[in-house]
Amino acid sequence: MAISNIRYGEGVTKEIGMDLQNLGARRVCVMTDKNLSKLPPVNAVLNSLAKYGINFQIYDNVRVEPTDQSFLDAIRFAKKGEFDAYVAVGGGSVIDTCKAANLYAASPTSEFLDYVNAPIGKGKPVTVPLKPLIAVPTTSGTGSETTGVAIFDFKELKVKTGIASRAIKPTLGIIDPLHTLSMPERIVANSGFDVLCHALESYTALPYNMRSPCPSNPINRPAYQGSNPVSDVWALHALRIVAKYLKRAIRNPEDREARANMHLASAFAGIGFGNAGVHLCHGMSYPISGLVKTYKPKDYNVDHSLVPHGLSVVLTSPAVFAFTAQIHPERHLEAAEILGADIRTARIKDAGFILADTLRKFLFDLNVDDGLAAIGYSKADIPALVKGTLPQERVTKLSPRPQTEEDLSALFEASMKLY
Amino acid sequence: MAISNIRYGEGVTKEIGMDLQNLGARRVCVMTDKNLSKLPPVNAVLNSLAKYGINFQIYDNVRVEPTDQSFLDAIRFAKKGEFDAYVAVGGGSVIDTCKAANLYAASPTSEFLDYVNAPIGKGKPVTVPLKPLIAVPTTSGTGSETTGVAIFDFKELKVKTGIASRAIKPTLGIIDPLHTLSMPERIVANSGFDVLCHALESYTALPYNMRSPCPSNPINRPAYQGSNPVSDVWALHALRIVAKYLKRAIRNPEDREARANMHLASAFAGIGFGNAGVHLCHGMSYPISGLVKTYKPKDYNVDHSLVPHGLSVVLTSPAVFAFTAQIHPERHLEAAEILGADIRTARIKDAGFILADTLRKFLFDLNVDDGLAAIGYSKADIPALVKGTLPQERVTKLSPRPQTEEDLSALFEASMKLY
Ligand SMILES: NC(=O)c1ccc[n+]([C@@H]2O[C@H](COP(=O)([O-])OP(=O)(O)OC[C@H]3O[C@@H](n4cnc5c(N)ncnc54)[C@H](O)[C@@H]3O)[C@@H](O)[C@H]2O)c1
Ligand SMILES: NC(=O)c1ccc[n+]([C@@H]2O[C@H](COP(=O)([O-])OP(=O)(O)OC[C@H]3O[C@@H](n4cnc5c(N)ncnc54)[C@H](O)[C@@H]3O)[C@@H](O)[C@H]2O)c1
Ligand SMILES: [Fe+2]
Ligand SMILES: [Fe+2]
Repeated sequence: MAISNIRYGEGVTKEIGMDLQNLGARRVCVMTDKNLSKLPPVNAVLNSLAKYGINFQIYDNVRVEPTDQSFLDAIRFAKKGEFDAYVAVGGGSVIDTCKAANLYAASPTSEFLDYVNAPIGKGKPVTVPLKPLIAVPTTSGTGSETTGVAIFDFKELKVKTGIASRAIKPTLGIIDPLHTLSMPERIVANSGFDVLCHALESYTALPYNMRSPCPSNPINRPAYQGSNPVSDVWALHALRIVAKYLKRAIRNPEDREARANMHLASAFAGIGFGNAGVHLCHGMSYPISGLVKTYKPKDYNVDHSLVPHGLSVVLTSPAVFAFTAQIHPERHLEAAEILGADIRTARIKDAGFILADTLRKFLFDLNVDDGLAAIGYSKADIPALVKGTLPQERVTKLSPRPQTEEDLSALFEASMKLY
Repeated sequence: MAISNIRYGEGVTKEIGMDLQNLGARRVCVMTDKNLSKLPPVNAVLNSLAKYGINFQIYDNVRVEPTDQSFLDAIRFAKKGEFDAYVAVGGGSVIDTCKAANLYAASPTSEFLDYVNAPIGKGKPVTVPLKPLIAVPTTSGTGSETTGVAIFDFKELKVKTGIASRAIKPTLGIIDPLHTLSMPERIVANSGFDVLCHALESYTALPYNMRSPCPSNPINRPAYQGSNPVSDVWALHALRIVAKYLKRAIRNPEDREARANMHLASAFAGIGFGNAGVHLCHGMSYPISGLVKTYKPKDYNVDHSLVPHGLSVVLTSPAVFAFTAQIHPERHLEAAEILGADIRTARIKDAGFILADTLRKFLFDLNVDDGLAAIGYSKADIPALVKGTLPQERVTKLSPRPQTEEDLSALFEASMKLY
């Protein structure tokens, strides 16, 4: 399991100009999105760059829920700018876009598909050296500041996929809880659900010693290695924080303790799933996002329809964990208990139902849309949703329980309505 | 904070030849000690090197509890060998010696004192590139496979000190629980006490946001940053494993589950204290080891007198935590509870006594020598012990409660007899 460098504390962003000086950076690319470019987190970064006399250009054209086209736009900007360092200030959309821009600018002769995950892309290993990238997360969700993953929506195929390589992991993540204070309610909620699913999926993922085939050379180990004693520590710890603080963070923007804890939990869960992997909620979420029709979520200041990533993963979670519990029922029951279920008289064979019920109650309390139907899907869409899940093998094969197409169909169907 | 690269699993050592191939290594230095050179862990490494045709030389002259002289001997070997990679197979003594050999071979014009911690040495930052070092721990104690620290006994001054730099952190730690099976009882016990103290000290260390002065540039942050939300996770997790498994691991060499868990706990506590730091038990242990008279511990197959590191830290632990509890009583009480104390009716102001009692009972149950008197010290030695602690500022200043020379005297005196 590998390395993440993080720095935590209220206000630590003000040191970023010094960090860039220490890196010897002379032409810095600051990436963000249009909404954030007017908000305090970007301000804090720019103030520090100004204070330390760092020369920079801003790219604020990141698309919320990026696509291949929006990645390519950022890549063009990066190639032209000949930057020697990158700063990404934003949620997963910004950090992921910046990772891709850094990668392709460093590898100018590569085709876009070269590094995209197989089977959609060629999944080539990255052998070129990248420039330093400092990630400053402003949501409490993806943990992208700690992972070697960049996700985008492949418009042509109407499916999300990504790039996964240790090489694109940020050099440093600056976890400054002050940046969470400007997040509106639904962004706290949806990005928090992402943390919840990262923790639950990595904790229940196929154990590292049960993956097969075992790669013959350690260099060929996938980034996602299955659940293991190290990722378990991160996953459980993040889950405990989610249980204690997510509702508070959503309901009260002034609750700094809750928001700060969720900001850390996002990084912790990122370190966990960045090593162990995620499975069905994430695998099934990619077509749920990719096939979006007209859904426009509250609090997202954007002009296109989208299903926020955290919402797209959490809506199937009750069905998914009811399905996977057959394999590690104790872990599912333990998760339910952490999330508040009373398991004193629970039977181990009911672990899946108990966790599913606990999740449903959790979502209901937080006014989450009532299932896939509420965000615009119907039974008729299930074949397309299943078809979009099949190429997500990289994650779905980490499900502790193998799935047929019929199983996937049934999981989507069971997720149409939750309450 | 940085998290280390580790690989965990029974038998994973057999891949080490491939790892070295992947690193392109053509001249490998294998370091170990005379006792281990005949035991299964070294065998497993050599078999893998042979299988993958790796060219290597063995240095088995590592001193258990290394000194400046023994470091210098290993450094001479490394300089002569012009190696392009290192493998350390052993306990902290071997891994630390190998770190020093790698460092000084990469920096041939440096004086030995250049990199030694101030005020004893010059504490210069390391700017030369080192060769890859793979650490294969065979004790469950130091966590040296995850830290940037190398400790030795400075004979002239009769005091232990060390080298601390992220640059000497191993490239990879191979945590293979099979290597723990050959450890005799007292080595399991003493190295386990080291894990216990790493966890307790890093959990109770001065919080990261209370250190002063705050370095003006992040590049000047010390390796030991004080307790923080990330190191807390590792410290508590390691402490829980120690509570559950240390006694079992000591008493029953066949208890693979217990020994495997302690092997992981050692790395976990290493990640924790490697970022947060340790404080008084460690600061006071350096003169306890350095001033050793004639004590020869059971199970240590060596011909010089020595106080094993884990024993030297744990003997003062009851006195130390009774002293520090004034500052974070809740954390001390929480630690006592994890170690088995019933705290339902405990008063917070008794936290220190409760933790001290719990530790005394723990040590008594494990037949640990009855205090500093039992290993050859008397009241007359206290001034020398205090004098040897004063230069250990790098760690003692991380104590949550500041100490005068009188305080240190009283702590040594209280540690003369435990039961
Ligand atoms: N790389 C990974 O490891 C990883 C993991 C999970 C998800 N993802 C990807 O990350 C993306 C989702 O990222 P996200 O959930 O962080 O949200 P996001 O980056 O898509 O941002 C969502 C919205 O929140 C706004 N926003 C962000 N921070 C704000 C703040 N502090 N104050 C006010 N508004 C703020 C943004 O402007 C945007 O409108 C998806 O594309 C998803 O697939 C990546
Ligand atoms: N670098 C760090 O972060 C760090 C932290 C704490 C302590 N230390 C240092 O590490 C040293 C102590 O290391 P240690 O406690 O690991 O012990 P050690 O390396 O001194 O070994 C102790 C004895 O155990 C034997 N041994 C080791 N593994 C064995 C096995 N599997 N089977 C049989 N015998 C085995 C050795 O041959 C030796 O005789 C001290 O010098 C201490 O100061 C370093
Ligand atoms: Fe996610
Ligand atoms: Fe130690």
